[in-house]
Amino acid sequence: MILCDIGNSFAKFYDGKKVERLKIDEIFRYADRRVCYINVNERIAKELSSLHKWLDLSPFIDFTTSYEGMGIDRQVLCTLVDDGVVVDAGSAITVDVMESGKHKGGFITPGLRFLLEDFSAISSRLRIAAVESVELDRLPLNTKDAMSYGIIKPLVLAIEQFGKRVYCTGGDGEILANYCANSCYDELMIFKAMMKIVQRNSLC
Amino acid sequence: MILCDIGNSFAKFYDGKKVERLKIDEIFRYADRRVCYINVNERIAKELSSLHKWLDLSPFIDFTTSYEGMGIDRQVLCTLVDDGVVVDAGSAITVDVMESGKHKGGFITPGLRFLLEDFSAISSRLRIAAVESVELDRLPLNTKDAMSYGIIKPLVLAIEQFGKRVYCTGGDGEILANYCANSCYDELMIFKAMMKIVQRNSLC
Repeated sequence: MILCDIGNSFAKFYDGKKVERLKIDEIFRYADRRVCYINVNERIAKELSSLHKWLDLSPFIDFTTSYEGMGIDRQVLCTLVDDGVVVDAGSAITVDVMESGKHKGGFITPGLRFLLEDFSAISSRLRIAAVESVELDRLPLNTKDAMSYGIIKPLVLAIEQFGKRVYCTGGDGEILANYCANSCYDELMIFKAMMKIVQRNSLC
Repeated sequence: MILCDIGNSFAKFYDGKKVERLKIDEIFRYADRRVCYINVNERIAKELSSLHKWLDLSPFIDFTTSYEGMGIDRQVLCTLVDDGVVVDAGSAITVDVMESGKHKGGFITPGLRFLLEDFSAISSRLRIAAVESVELDRLPLNTKDAMSYGIIKPLVLAIEQFGKRVYCTGGDGEILANYCANSCYDELMIFKAMMKIVQRNSLC
C-alpha cells in the first residue's frame, strides 16, 4: 500500500521507504496501485473518486475542532500531537496548537519561498536566494541579515509564544525547527499520521 | 519649499499642507520648483542631480550606524527618535531600534500587500482583500482570521520584543500602530524629520 498527500501543486507519495513528489497531473501513473490518500485540492477531487483502488482517508480521521474550514492535512498532522505546536512549512506555513488532545486554533502565513520572492519584487537590492543563517539574539547590521531575521524571527516568536514543544514538518520545516526552542523536525510526519489512521481502522 | 521622499515605485511630495503621491516618471513636473529630497531609487539618481533647483538632503543627515547599506529614508526617520522602535510599513516593512540616541540595528519584512498577494497565489481559498480586524489575544478558529493573525501577530511580537515605544509611519503604519502596545502613528514622520534637517542646516 502507498500513502499519498495531495496538495494544490504537488502530491507526495510514500511507500514506506521513500517520498516521491509528483506534479498533480502526474499522479495518475499510480492509478492502478492501492493508494490511501488525503487531498486538499478541490480541482481533482472528482477525478480521484473515480480511481477505484484509491481510498480517501478523510472519513476515518478522528479529529474534532471548532476551527471552520481546517484543511484535512492540518487535521491529520494534529492527530499525532497531544500537546504542542504543529508547524507545516510548505507553500503556506500553518501553525496549530494542541493542548491536552484538544485543538485550540491556529494561523497561516505565506511560506518562506514566497517571502523571498516578495523581497525580489520590492527591490533588486532585496534579492537573496535562500534564508541565510542568522543570529536571532542580536539585531541585524546589514541588509542580508535584516531580511533573513525579518522572515524568521517574527515567525519563531509567534510559534514559541505558546511555550510548548514544536513539531515541524514540510519543505522548510527543518529550517524553522533549527531556530525554534524545544523543537523537532520530521519529514514523514504526515505519513506517520496517515499510517496510524490506516492501522486503527484496519484499512490495509 | 517642497519636501520629497523618493522610493522605488513612488515619490511623496509635501508642501507643508498635504502629501501628494506621484509615480516616479511624474515627479519631473516639479522640476522648476525648489525641492529638498531624499532618494533610495538608484535608477533616477543621475536625473535628479541634473535638477538644479532640487537639493539632496543626504549629505546633511546627522546619523551614524554600524548597519551597512541602511536606506537613507530609514536613517532620516531614525533621527527623530532617541529611544524607541521605528516602523515604516510600506512595500517593505522596516523596523529599526534606537536606544539612547544610538541605532542598534533593524530588520526588514515584505509589506502587508505582498503577503496578501502571496496568499492569493498559494490558493484561491486564501484570498482576502485586506488584513481584517482580528483579536491577537486568542487563537483564530477560521481561515480568514488565521490569515490576518498570521500576517499581523508575528510582526507585532517582533516589534514589541524590545519593550520600547513604537513609532509607526508608512501606508500600513496605522494598521500596525493599532495592534502594537505603546505605539503611535504619524503619516508625516519622514517629512518632519526632513524639515528638521532643513532647518538645522539653514537650507531654506
